[in-house]
Order: sequence, then C-alpha cells, then structure tokens
Amino acid sequence: MTQHKIAVLVGSLRKGSFNRKMAKVLAELASSSLKLEIIEIGNLPMYNQDLDEDPPSAWVDLRESIKNSVGVLFITPEYNRSVPAVLKNAIDVGSRPYGQSAWEGKPCAVMSVSPGAMGGFGANHHLRQSLVFLDMPTMQQPEAYIGGASKLFDANGRITNEDTKKLLQKFIDTYRGWVELHLKR
Amino acid sequence: MTQHKIAVLVGSLRKGSFNRKMAKVLAELASSSLKLEIIEIGNLPMYNQDLDEDPPSAWVDLRESIKNSVGVLFITPEYNRSVPAVLKNAIDVGSRPYGQSAWEGKPCAVMSVSPGAMGGFGANHHLRQSLVFLDMPTMQQPEAYIGGASKLFDANGRITNEDTKKLLQKFIDTYRGWVELHLKR
Amino acid sequence: MTQHKIAVLVGSLRKGSFNRKMAKVLAELASSSLKLEIIEIGNLPMYNQDLDEDPPSAWVDLRESIKNSVGVLFITPEYNRSVPAVLKNAIDVGSRPYGQSAWEGKPCAVMSVSPGAMGGFGANHHLRQSLVFLDMPTMQQPEAYIGGASKLFDANGRITNEDTKKLLQKFIDTYRGWVELHLKR
Amino acid sequence: MTQHKIAVLVGSLRKGSFNRKMAKVLAELASSSLKLEIIEIGNLPMYNQDLDEDPPSAWVDLRESIKNSVGVLFITPEYNRSVPAVLKNAIDVGSRPYGQSAWEGKPCAVMSVSPGAMGGFGANHHLRQSLVFLDMPTMQQPEAYIGGASKLFDANGRITNEDTKKLLQKFIDTYRGWVELHLKR
Repeated sequence: MTQHKIAVLVGSLRKGSFNRKMAKVLAELASSSLKLEIIEIGNLPMYNQDLDEDPPSAWVDLRESIKNSVGVLFITPEYNRSVPAVLKNAIDVGSRPYGQSAWEGKPCAVMSVSPGAMGGFGANHHLRQSLVFLDMPTMQQPEAYIGGASKLFDANGRITNEDTKKLLQKFIDTYRGWVELHLKR
Repeated sequence: MTQHKIAVLVGSLRKGSFNRKMAKVLAELASSSLKLEIIEIGNLPMYNQDLDEDPPSAWVDLRESIKNSVGVLFITPEYNRSVPAVLKNAIDVGSRPYGQSAWEGKPCAVMSVSPGAMGGFGANHHLRQSLVFLDMPTMQQPEAYIGGASKLFDANGRITNEDTKKLLQKFIDTYRGWVELHLKR
Repeated sequence: MTQHKIAVLVGSLRKGSFNRKMAKVLAELASSSLKLEIIEIGNLPMYNQDLDEDPPSAWVDLRESIKNSVGVLFITPEYNRSVPAVLKNAIDVGSRPYGQSAWEGKPCAVMSVSPGAMGGFGANHHLRQSLVFLDMPTMQQPEAYIGGASKLFDANGRITNEDTKKLLQKFIDTYRGWVELHLKR
Repeated sequence: MTQHKIAVLVGSLRKGSFNRKMAKVLAELASSSLKLEIIEIGNLPMYNQDLDEDPPSAWVDLRESIKNSVGVLFITPEYNRSVPAVLKNAIDVGSRPYGQSAWEGKPCAVMSVSPGAMGGFGANHHLRQSLVFLDMPTMQQPEAYIGGASKLFDANGRITNEDTKKLLQKFIDTYRGWVELHLKR
C-alpha cells in the first residue's frame, strides 16, 4: 500500500512536551498508509516580510518539507487561550512569499493537547481560523481536545487510558480517509 | 499633569511597517497624560518552558518593561486571519513563568491595521481572547479595525484622511480615560 | 446532468434582506448541477430541549428538509459581531435530538453579506466553529465576506459590479466541486 | 448599603436548566450590594429589523429592564460550540433600534455552564466578541467555564463541591468590584 507522507507540526519546544509525545503515539497508530514525520520548527527565524527576497535557509527548508507532503497534522498546546508563537510562526513562514503558500490544498487535521480540562479548545479553533485562509481542507470530526495531558503517558511515552487510545485510533483512521478523499480531486 | 507610561507592542517587524507608523502617530496624538513607548519585541527568543529557570536576558527585559508600564497598547497586523507570531511570542514570554505574569491588571487597548478592507478583524479578536486569560481590562469601544493601510500615510508618516484622524483621536482619548479609571482600583 | 439539491439558509428576516437577494443571485449562478432552495427558518420556535419528545411541526419540517438535501449553503449577515439568532436557532433545532443531527456529513459553504466594509467576518467565523461540531465538511476558499451590501443590488436584485459577480461565480463553482468530491465518500 | 440591580440573562429554556440553577446560586452568594434578577427572554419574538418601527411589547420590556439595571450577568450553556439562539436573540433585540442600544456601558460578566469537561468555552468567548461591539466593559478574571454541570447541584439546587463554591464566591465578589469601579466613570 502506498504510504502517504504527512508533515506533523508540534506546537511546543519543551523537551518533555506532551504534544511531541502525542505525535509519536499517533505515528505508531497511523495505519501503514500514512507516514507521519515531525517537521522541526523551533529554529525558524521569526517571519519578517523584509527577508522574503533573500530568505533564511530554515524558511526554505520548511516550505520544501510542506510541499513534499501529502497532508499536514497539527498538534498543539494552548498558550494564553491561543496558538503558541512557535507554531504560528511556522504557519506564517510557510504561507509566504505572497502567492506561493506551501499549505494550499493540503488536507489537514488539528489535535490540541493540554494539562487542563479544556484540552486546548481555544488554540484548536484559533488555528482552524487560519486554515480557512490557507485553503487547507480541515477534518471536522472527531474533534480532539485532549485534556489531563500530564497523566496521559507512562514512562515509555505510551498511553494507558483505553478511552483515549480509542479516540486517537478513530482520529487517525478518519484522517486517513480524509486524506484519501482529497487525493481524488 | 502626570504622564502615565504606556508600553506599545507592534506586531510587525517590517521596516516600513504600517503598524509601526501608526504607533508613532498615536504617540503624537496621545494627550500629555500618556507617554507611549514602543517596546521592541523582534529579538525575543521563542518561548520555551525549559528556559524558564535561566531565562534569556531579552525575556527579562521585556517583563521589566511591561511591569514598569501603567498600561499596554497593542497595534497589530493580521497574518493568516490571526495574530502574528512575533506579537504572540511577546505575549507568551511576558506571561511566564507561571504565576508571575507581567501583564496582570494592566489596562489595555487593541488596534489592528492592515492593507485589506477588513482591517485585521481576525487578529484583533484572537488577541482579545488572550487578554481575557491575562486579566487585562480591555477597552471595548471604539473598536479600531484600520483598513486600507497602504494608502493611509504620507511620505512623512502622517495621516491625511480626516475621518481616520478623528477615529484615532477618539481612540486614544477614550483609552486615556480607561487607564485612569483603572488607576482607581 | 443530475441536479444536487442544496438547502440555502438565510440569516435575516427583513423583507428587503440583502442576504435573501444574494441567495437568489447565487441560485441563478449555480450551474445546472446544483439546485439551490431557500429553507424558511423564521417561524421555528426557539430551541428548548423540553420539547424534544413532542417537537413542533416546524422543527420536524426543517430537519426533513436538511436530510433531503445533498449540501447546505449558509448566507448570513452579522449581528453584534456574531451569527443572528434566527440562523443559530435553525442550526440548534437541526442538530437535535441528541444523536440525530440532520447536518452530519453535509458538505457546506458560508457566505457573509453586510453593509459594512468587513463583510460579516465575525459571523462567518463563528458559524464555522459550529460547523466543526456538526461535522459538516466546510469549503475554505474562496472566503466570501461581501461588504457594501447596500450598494450591491440594482432595482431588480441583480449585481452590477463585475468583480463581485466573478467572485460569486467562483464561489458557487468551487462549491459545486466541493459537493461532488464529498459524494465520493 | 446600596443594592445595585443586576440583570441576569440565562441562555437555556429547559425547566431543569443547570444555568438557571446557577443563576439562583449566584443570587444567594451575591453580597448585599448586588441584587441579581433573572430577566425572562424565552418569549421574545425573533429579531427582525422590519418590526423596529412598531416593536413587540416583549422587546420593549426587555430593553427597559436592561436600561434599569446597573450591570448584566450572562449565564450560558453551549449549543454547537457557540451561544444558544435564545440568548443571542435577547442580545440582538436589546441592541436595537440602531443607536439606542440598551447595553451600552453596562459592566458585565460571563459564566458558561455545561455538562461536558470544557465548560462552554466556545459559547463564553463567542459571547465576549459581541460584548466588544456592545461596549460593555467585561470582567476578565476569574474566567468561569463550569463543567460537569449534571453532577453539580443537589436536590435543592445547592452546590456541594467546595472548590466550585469558592470559585463562584470569588467570581461574584470580583464582579461586584468591577461594577463599582465602573460606577466611578
């Protein structure tokens, strides 16, 4: 079976990041038809339109990575009820220069992961507003607001809670279908 | 009359930034009771919780600048229907370490400035959602979604359009009242 | 060619409603493959869960109309920076009783129309947040924030502005493709 | 001590509504300086601009009730990730006719109450976006997203959970301070 390459963007830079752990869990759960690859975004210089003519190499690399992917998976914490700057910067860098966005048309999904009960709802929906502008077909259900993240993973980064595992499996399987539908365009 | 120090954060790094021009116009319009000072945010390392124990000096400086101000004025473009990363990063950096937010209680106002007709509505309201969490009393009216920014300033950075000038004057005068009300707490 | 039935919901009750005029313009522009039908929502009793066991007939009719449609087109003004109650009520009524939502899986698109410059951006995106929960695949581009609505239509309800006509044609043609893609699931 | 009259709007029509129960709990907790009164909004005809010249009496009554109050407290469930139509309709009715909004300047606070873990975050912030336009100074903290509502009240409508009781007391006490601050304008 063809393995579709999916770029995974993680919105936290912390070494022990729950969101990064989640990315690894999802990569394992993904059926053989999806190959999830984390794209590193922590070293991207802050977007500045003045640099568009002679862009930093990290910007160029990010844009290439996105263009070479079939779809995109966003996994994000919530900072101050919205999207962390590190993830927003990757989005802004990938969307430019004007008219050459790397994101256009890539089928995507959003998962938010946070220690609190609300599971990053604010970040999740702010991100979705950007995805409208970027013209990325966005999976609607299952919504994934994963709360209580500090108790979710065991020492090996595995999820032991069966309900969460089921939701994650449903999320990634539905996303595979979403990607394949959009390949028919 | 006492001049209250107001920190101004500008959400664009471009040299010819319309938002920076607007900050200068507002600084001139501010009555003698408000002293608007642009806080530079372009050189802040991206927020990463792992650095909280030994924070970069630019983070420390930002937090000091905010704490030394009576209020905060946000002037922001819209990137991909939301807040630019450079401004969100300043917000995230200023809000940490946990429990020591520099923003708490500072009366603030939001202006969005963009070349398009919609004047940065998406960025304006996403920013407001963060301000709820940060516990910053936020001026509601006049809302300021300044569109058509590329035709707004003359060669000396002045605004020639009388309607816009009136709105800006009303904005800054109302904000002065908002700041003074919150000093009574 | 098969004509797919599309339910059109209009968020204003005013007789001279710009949004209703827009619905008629779009019905004409729709290619022969889409049949746009306005579903009347002004007479729906306000949603109240206590009535779910013995629902008003207007509720039952709305749910049937949606279920019998292939897709849904929302055309909405903005009231107080959000969705008008009349449209939100139709959404709430159609989504219930719990587990029997009429909206699920219907491919949809959103257009906002208002007299102001911002073209109903606030209503447009608030509505999109509900569509995530309702699991309605939502067209991302072209976004349609139609401002200046009071000068848009001639005495016969036609649009004379060529740029707007082009945008509307692109909107409805892209939506047709979106509907047809989702029929392949 | 002067008792300031506060209009309470409840966003659910269900007889056993958790939000209505919460309104009663808050009315008891309010210090002697605030008199909370539920304004009934279930019988308001849907807003329609055509009726502005000869408005339904229920509209006139609502506008009077708001104008006669010092502040407003919104208590709302979440329907489809946004504000219930019944509450949005009250907001729209109270905001008109154009230029005669009853809401202007009234200090307010928002609490969302829902059975789910996320406590109505989506409704809470959509409502806040409307309050910007309405020029209602809105209390920022404590945010109140009250989840698990189906287990919150005992048979007499009392709250037994001590943490929730503390949050509610802090909420209403802070709101009293917010109202009193805005009386100094």
